Amino acid sequence: LSNQDQCNPHGQLRAHMDAAFASLPPAAVHGMPLDSVDTPALLLDLDAFERNLDRMQAAADAAGVQLRPHAKAHKCPAVALEQRARGAVGICCQKASEALPFLRAGITDIHISNQLASPDKAVMLARWAAAGARISACVDELSQIVALGNAAATSGSRLGVLVEIDIGQHRCGVPDADAVLHLLDAIARYPGLAFEGLQAYHGGVQHLRHQSERRSRSLQAAEQAASVRIALEQRGVRCTRVTGGGTGSVEFDLESGVYTEVQPGSYAFMDRDYADNESHGKLRFEHALFVASRVMSTAVAGQVVVDAGLKSLAVDSGLPTIRHPADQLRYAQANDEHGIVGPIDGARLPAQGTLLQLIPGHCDPTFNLHDELVGFRGDTVQCIWKIAARGLSR
Amino acid sequence: LSNQDQCNPHGQLRAHMDAAFASLPPAAVHGMPLDSVDTPALLLDLDAFERNLDRMQAAADAAGVQLRPHAKAHKCPAVALEQRARGAVGICCQKASEALPFLRAGITDIHISNQLASPDKAVMLARWAAAGARISACVDELSQIVALGNAAATSGSRLGVLVEIDIGQHRCGVPDADAVLHLLDAIARYPGLAFEGLQAYHGGVQHLRHQSERRSRSLQAAEQAASVRIALEQRGVRCTRVTGGGTGSVEFDLESGVYTEVQPGSYAFMDRDYADNESHGKLRFEHALFVASRVMSTAVAGQVVVDAGLKSLAVDSGLPTIRHPADQLRYAQANDEHGIVGPIDGARLPAQGTLLQLIPGHCDPTFNLHDELVGFRGDTVQCIWKIAARGLSR
Repeated sequence: LSNQDQCNPHGQLRAHMDAAFASLPPAAVHGMPLDSVDTPALLLDLDAFERNLDRMQAAADAAGVQLRPHAKAHKCPAVALEQRARGAVGICCQKASEALPFLRAGITDIHISNQLASPDKAVMLARWAAAGARISACVDELSQIVALGNAAATSGSRLGVLVEIDIGQHRCGVPDADAVLHLLDAIARYPGLAFEGLQAYHGGVQHLRHQSERRSRSLQAAEQAASVRIALEQRGVRCTRVTGGGTGSVEFDLESGVYTEVQPGSYAFMDRDYADNESHGKLRFEHALFVASRVMSTAVAGQVVVDAGLKSLAVDSGLPTIRHPADQLRYAQANDEHGIVGPIDGARLPAQGTLLQLIPGHCDPTFNLHDELVGFRGDTVQCIWKIAARGLSR
Repeated sequence: LSNQDQCNPHGQLRAHMDAAFASLPPAAVHGMPLDSVDTPALLLDLDAFERNLDRMQAAADAAGVQLRPHAKAHKCPAVALEQRARGAVGICCQKASEALPFLRAGITDIHISNQLASPDKAVMLARWAAAGARISACVDELSQIVALGNAAATSGSRLGVLVEIDIGQHRCGVPDADAVLHLLDAIARYPGLAFEGLQAYHGGVQHLRHQSERRSRSLQAAEQAASVRIALEQRGVRCTRVTGGGTGSVEFDLESGVYTEVQPGSYAFMDRDYADNESHGKLRFEHALFVASRVMSTAVAGQVVVDAGLKSLAVDSGLPTIRHPADQLRYAQANDEHGIVGPIDGARLPAQGTLLQLIPGHCDPTFNLHDELVGFRGDTVQCIWKIAARGLSR
C-alpha cells in the first residue's frame, strides 16, 4: 500500500486493452430520442424547468425581494447561469467547496448559508474573495468568527458575515438579539469582516402538508426574524440583508415583508415530496426532474425490476413515483441497484428494456448521485450539463 | 441553452481568478495526522481492513471455494487489488459501466452479477471481452440472451453466461431447472456465449439478526440452488460455477458445499447494519470504514451539529453510530448537509471543530457518495485511493 493511486498500472496492459478501456460511451448525445438514453440517467424537462424559473423570478420581482436560489439543490453551474440570466442576484451554497465550480463558471456572488466546521474552509473562501468573488457566510459561535476574520486578514480580502438566528428549527442559529450583539462585537474586531445581516431559515415548515398550516407557521417564523431585526435596529444595528426561505415557504416568505432575499432551490425541479404539499396559492411549480430507468428483469411474476435503485435516486424522503406511464405502476422497493415495480389496479407490466421516468422523492441528494443532467424538449435530448459540484461536501 | 457544457467561460475571468479557482486543496495528504483531515471524508482503517481480507480469504481457502468479492460495495480499484493479492479470483460488479475502472487497473476477470437492461450494455461488455477481459453476466429472460449473443458475435468475443435462479428473494431469477433449460436452448444458439452455471443469491437472508435463523435460512436457500443444479445434471447439463452469497450468509454459504464461488463485499468494511447481526460464528469482521465529520455548530442547547448528512453517508439502512468518542454521543437525525448529534446519558458535548468518526449504516451507497478513500494506520494518513467507479450505475 502506498500513497500512489494504484488504479492505473498501464504497463501491464496491452495497447488494444488501453484503447478498449479508455472511456465509456456517452449516456446521451444532442438530438438523440429520449427513449435511447442509456439508463439510469437524470433528465430535465427544459420547458417545465424554464417555466418554474420564470414563475419564481416574477414572484420575487413583484415582491421587491432578491432571489438567491440555492445551488445545493442541483450542484450544476449551467442551472445557476439560467437562474442568473432571469434576474437571480447570485446563489447560495451549503458548503465552502461546493462553491468552486460556480466560481469557475463566472458566478461570483455566493452566500454560504451555513456555518464552517474548520478554519481551513474559511481560508478557501477568503482566497476566492481575494480573487474578486463576493462571498458571505453564516456564523452562530465565536470561533467561526475568529476563523473567518483571520482568513480574511491573511488573504487581504473582505468576507460578508450573516449571523444565523434560530426561528424554530432548533438546528443552527442563536436565539435572540442579545446573542447577535455578542457576536457583533467579535465581528467588529476584524477589519476584513463585514456584518451584513441575518440568516433566518426554518427547514421544518417546508413540508407541512396543509397550505394553511404551512402559511401560518412560515409567517410566524418570519415574524420571529422580524422581531430580532427590530430589536437590533433599536440598538443602532442595521441589517441590510435578511436571507432565508425555501420552496415550501417561499410564497409566504415573500408575503411576509421580512426577507430581503429568498433562497429556494427545489422549485426549479419539484420532487415528489414537495409535490405532496397541498398548494392552492398562486406560486406553483411543475415536475421537471426525472430519473430514466429501464426494466432489467421480468422473471418473477407480478412485478418487474428496473435498473435504478438507491445509487440513482435518494429515498430519504420516500420512494419515487412513476411519471411515464402514469398511474399504472408503483415503485415499491429500492435496493442498491434495483427497483421493484408493481402494477396499480391490475395494470399491464412493461416489457424488458422499457424506459420509465421516475419522479424522485427528494431532488437534492438525487442530483448528488449523478454526474450529468440530460436536458430534453418533447422527446429529444437538447443538452448535457455537468453536475460539477456533485460530491463537493467539504 | 446548447449541447456545450456552459460551466467554464474562462474568457470572462481574469487570470488571477483562474488561478484562485483552479482546484480545491486536498482533503488529506500522506503522513498527515488523522485529526487534520478536511471533513467530511471517508476513512479506511488499513489494519482492520487487512485483517478482514485475510480472514475472508482464509475461510474461502479452507472451504475450497473461490472468493470473488463484490466491487459494488467499494467501487475502488485499489481495494480490489488488495483482495486479488490475497487470492481473490476476480471481482463481481453489479452494473456494466462499473467494471471499467477495474479493467483499467488490470483486474480483467469480472462477473456482472446482474441482468442488463439494454443491448447497449451488452455491447460494452463484448468489446471489453474482445480486448482480452474475461467477462460473464447473468440472464433470466430471452431478450437478454439475444443482446449478449449479438454483441459477442459483432465483436468476435466470448462472454460467459450464468442463469440466475430465484432461491427465495423473489427479485430476479427463474424458478426452476425447466426454466433454466429453456434459456439454455437460446444460449446454445450463439457461438460467442458460454453457459457457465448458476447465480443464486438471496439478499433477504443477509440481515436476519439471529445467527441460528440466518444459518438455517441461508442453508435452505443453498439447498434450493443445489436442487436445481442436480436436476440439470440429471439432464446432462453441468454447472461449472455456482456463484452467490453475501457478507451476512457467507459463513453458511461456505459450509453448504453448494457454491463454487462466493461474492461477499461488505466484509472488508463492516457497516453498522451488518454489525447489528448477532454473530458467534468463527468468521467475524471488524469495522474498518468511517466517515470523518466535524462539529460545525453548537449554538442550540443540548446538541451539536456535525458537517456530515445525507450527502456524505447513506441512511437507507439506518443512521450511523459514533465510534470516536465511543458510547457518549448519538447521531439523532440526518439532513442533507447536517447531522444532529446528542449526548448519551448526560455525556459532555464536543466543542466546535471536534472531529468525530461515524460508522455508516450501509457501506455500499456511502462509498457511492465519495470520490476518495483516506487510508490510515493508527493516527496517521497512509494513502488516498480513488473511488473510481463511484456513480458508474449504467
